[in-house]
Amino acid sequence: MAETQVWNKKDLLGLEYLSKEEIELFLNTADSFKEVTTREIKKVPALRGKTVVNLFYEPSTRTRVSFELAAKRLSADVINIAVETSSVKKGETLIDTGRNIEALKADIIVVRHNSSGAAMMLAQHVNISVVNAGDGWHEHPTQALLDMFTLKEKLGRLEGIRVSIVGDIAHSRVARSNIWGLTKLGAKVTVCAPKILIPPGIEEMGASVTHNIDEALTDADAVNVLRMQFERDEADAFPKQLEYFKKFGITQERLAKAKKDLIVMHPGPINRGIEISSEVADCPQSVILEQVTNGIAVRMAVLFLESQARDTGKNENPS
Amino acid sequence: MAETQVWNKKDLLGLEYLSKEEIELFLNTADSFKEVTTREIKKVPALRGKTVVNLFYEPSTRTRVSFELAAKRLSADVINIAVETSSVKKGETLIDTGRNIEALKADIIVVRHNSSGAAMMLAQHVNISVVNAGDGWHEHPTQALLDMFTLKEKLGRLEGIRVSIVGDIAHSRVARSNIWGLTKLGAKVTVCAPKILIPPGIEEMGASVTHNIDEALTDADAVNVLRMQFERDEADAFPKQLEYFKKFGITQERLAKAKKDLIVMHPGPINRGIEISSEVADCPQSVILEQVTNGIAVRMAVLFLESQARDTGKNENPS
Amino acid sequence: MAETQVWNKKDLLGLEYLSKEEIELFLNTADSFKEVTTREIKKVPALRGKTVVNLFYEPSTRTRVSFELAAKRLSADVINIAVETSSVKKGETLIDTGRNIEALKADIIVVRHNSSGAAMMLAQHVNISVVNAGDGWHEHPTQALLDMFTLKEKLGRLEGIRVSIVGDIAHSRVARSNIWGLTKLGAKVTVCAPKILIPPGIEEMGASVTHNIDEALTDADAVNVLRMQFERDEADAFPKQLEYFKKFGITQERLAKAKKDLIVMHPGPINRGIEISSEVADCPQSVILEQVTNGIAVRMAVLFLESQARDTGKNENPS
Repeated sequence: MAETQVWNKKDLLGLEYLSKEEIELFLNTADSFKEVTTREIKKVPALRGKTVVNLFYEPSTRTRVSFELAAKRLSADVINIAVETSSVKKGETLIDTGRNIEALKADIIVVRHNSSGAAMMLAQHVNISVVNAGDGWHEHPTQALLDMFTLKEKLGRLEGIRVSIVGDIAHSRVARSNIWGLTKLGAKVTVCAPKILIPPGIEEMGASVTHNIDEALTDADAVNVLRMQFERDEADAFPKQLEYFKKFGITQERLAKAKKDLIVMHPGPINRGIEISSEVADCPQSVILEQVTNGIAVRMAVLFLESQARDTGKNENPS
Repeated sequence: MAETQVWNKKDLLGLEYLSKEEIELFLNTADSFKEVTTREIKKVPALRGKTVVNLFYEPSTRTRVSFELAAKRLSADVINIAVETSSVKKGETLIDTGRNIEALKADIIVVRHNSSGAAMMLAQHVNISVVNAGDGWHEHPTQALLDMFTLKEKLGRLEGIRVSIVGDIAHSRVARSNIWGLTKLGAKVTVCAPKILIPPGIEEMGASVTHNIDEALTDADAVNVLRMQFERDEADAFPKQLEYFKKFGITQERLAKAKKDLIVMHPGPINRGIEISSEVADCPQSVILEQVTNGIAVRMAVLFLESQARDTGKNENPS
Repeated sequence: MAETQVWNKKDLLGLEYLSKEEIELFLNTADSFKEVTTREIKKVPALRGKTVVNLFYEPSTRTRVSFELAAKRLSADVINIAVETSSVKKGETLIDTGRNIEALKADIIVVRHNSSGAAMMLAQHVNISVVNAGDGWHEHPTQALLDMFTLKEKLGRLEGIRVSIVGDIAHSRVARSNIWGLTKLGAKVTVCAPKILIPPGIEEMGASVTHNIDEALTDADAVNVLRMQFERDEADAFPKQLEYFKKFGITQERLAKAKKDLIVMHPGPINRGIEISSEVADCPQSVILEQVTNGIAVRMAVLFLESQARDTGKNENPS
């Protein structure tokens, strides 16, 4: 698989299952689609007559809209299924739902689910392509691909760069996908969080661990700040948010001690004043909105390559 | 009307109102659209510039998605209106909503409503086409058309075949539409359920009645298994589900006593282990997923013929 | 700006900010799009490859569907974001959401929000076009444009005509936008409501005030009847509804005392028997459904002109 020039897998389930060459193929393909989004007419006929189904078991405007727009700019037909408002509530299993979507002659299912492994289970039971748009705490491969695309665009390379990921690593599919992808391409990854938010086994994945934010920022080329979610009860949440911001929040003061051109990333939506200060979110080093733009290009690349793999009949299950 | 070769009615409200020839026209037209769904580019320009509105007063992912995809593959513009999340809550009547949709210059309203007769009432108050996507316990004509399409595909004919419908006949628009359609085309229909779930007047519609599942399966060419819905309270529901499955559930043991090539159908979503065993749902005789595929072809045919009827100006109200 | 022949503003936030010539440009452009909606193929390629995002913080089927259809008939890609079912709940600010939509390379945001001024705030923080689809009690410019378009279509002119607006003026963005627009084009506007529903400052906007419905109807060329919303508790609401209908409801008896060809308008959805009698809603003088039809033409004009302004690079902020 070392000389892969084409994508020949049925599904995109996680960066753990991809080779360095396959990841590079996605990034390079995204490069050409990024140009499309700068045109006056932001549309290509690549997926005309194809059907992409967004099957979302968790509410998500950002990721759903990004995939929907990517598919529409490829001229695909898009169907959105949000499970809260659907008959899936009636008790149909994920597998039965997937098989029904397959029977509708859809080409690609983009699935978001709150259970780790849901995307893979679905992929094993349908013959059409499955793209994981986030499964539990497991993986969110297109987010990591767009993060890596943005890093490469800014820094010119991924090999040898230092990326720190700050926040609730234990419950973050974004962190996991980034660690798999970045280490495969030769980047050095450090994760930074309170002890309780570092999962066991993270070092086996190739990441260094620190609990000190200043240490995490020293020598880093980029910091990827994860969204922090506290209790819904505001009275309970507020002191914890304050404490977190004090210990781990990304502020101008902390940036002043880091590399001058440190890149600040965030998968969004941002909590101003909780994991990141408002000033940092809007500062010149912040590429948060460029990540959003690149998300479209990366997802166009993913849908395009999946569609190509299907058409050339070279599908094989990566699991 | 005996020699009808074209569809010239404004609405599709139920199979009760159609002639044998009209039903055959839908089935034959679906035949040509089925081919479209097997193409690499599953799209034809037949309804370009037309607008189809899915007006759903009951949540339904399956039927809504099937109509949405059918319309999109015909190149129509599709608008989804789900009443739970809409201003229809503010108290606008169905008729006013329909007239507003007509004023938007939509071409076809696909309506699902929990009141029997709602589709007909709507059709009588707008000049555009209305397609009934299920109204209360009354009719679900496109489901019956796709069931009949599937039966004809599998058995080569409908004339003289024996179809048993098992489940809550009393509250099933699927059963009613199937009885109307199948008997018009010369099939013999038996309904099977506990006494309490058999509505009065079902024999006048042309169906035989039995309360014995083995009797229903003997000599049948196909069994159409209806979804059973019990109380939401699981503790209450479980013993009833168990009892129902024991007395009426479609199992391998029961199939073993029936015709060897008995076709197993279900309008979905299936309840594995309640009205049908998991083994039967997935067995070679099960055509449940083929029904889903055929649903697209049938709904493309319905939208296409409705659109043609409008364009040729031959509209007349069937009621 | 007196000789404006082209629209060169980035946003459409309210009729307060437009010149007479700009309003006329919208109305004239809508004229040509109205013809499109009468064609068999109701679609033009004007916005192909453009993206329109409907960002709705308030539920609204009517306005959302009207904008969605207008955009689709211009061949734009449309994304619907309803905030109830979206991650915006997670606490992202309106400005951050807007910047994210901009980063997705959308071209136009159509925003509905329950806070007055929300559309302007959004417009000031993004470089793409913002169209106000209703912000709190402030403005609903496209509704007023379609009302004016309908009046001009019926009466041949706006200059010198007399329009009475009846209902809850204090909480009505429709009333405010109509007053700004109509007075700029030389119409005479009277508002009519119980004292408590007349906001301070309405006369400074150029409207006359009356609390007597018969006075409001005398000599009027058109009456625009606003939807009345009472308490949700039906037992509480009923006597108030009855009293309101008795004092301000538009009935055949009241119409009999007005000009013979008085035009009856309503932004919908109508409450039959509360602010308007059922007979009046359906009478020949009622243009309520024509307003809906004209809404599509007006919104096509708005989206088209916004898109043109962007392409010619003549954007400037109106605020």
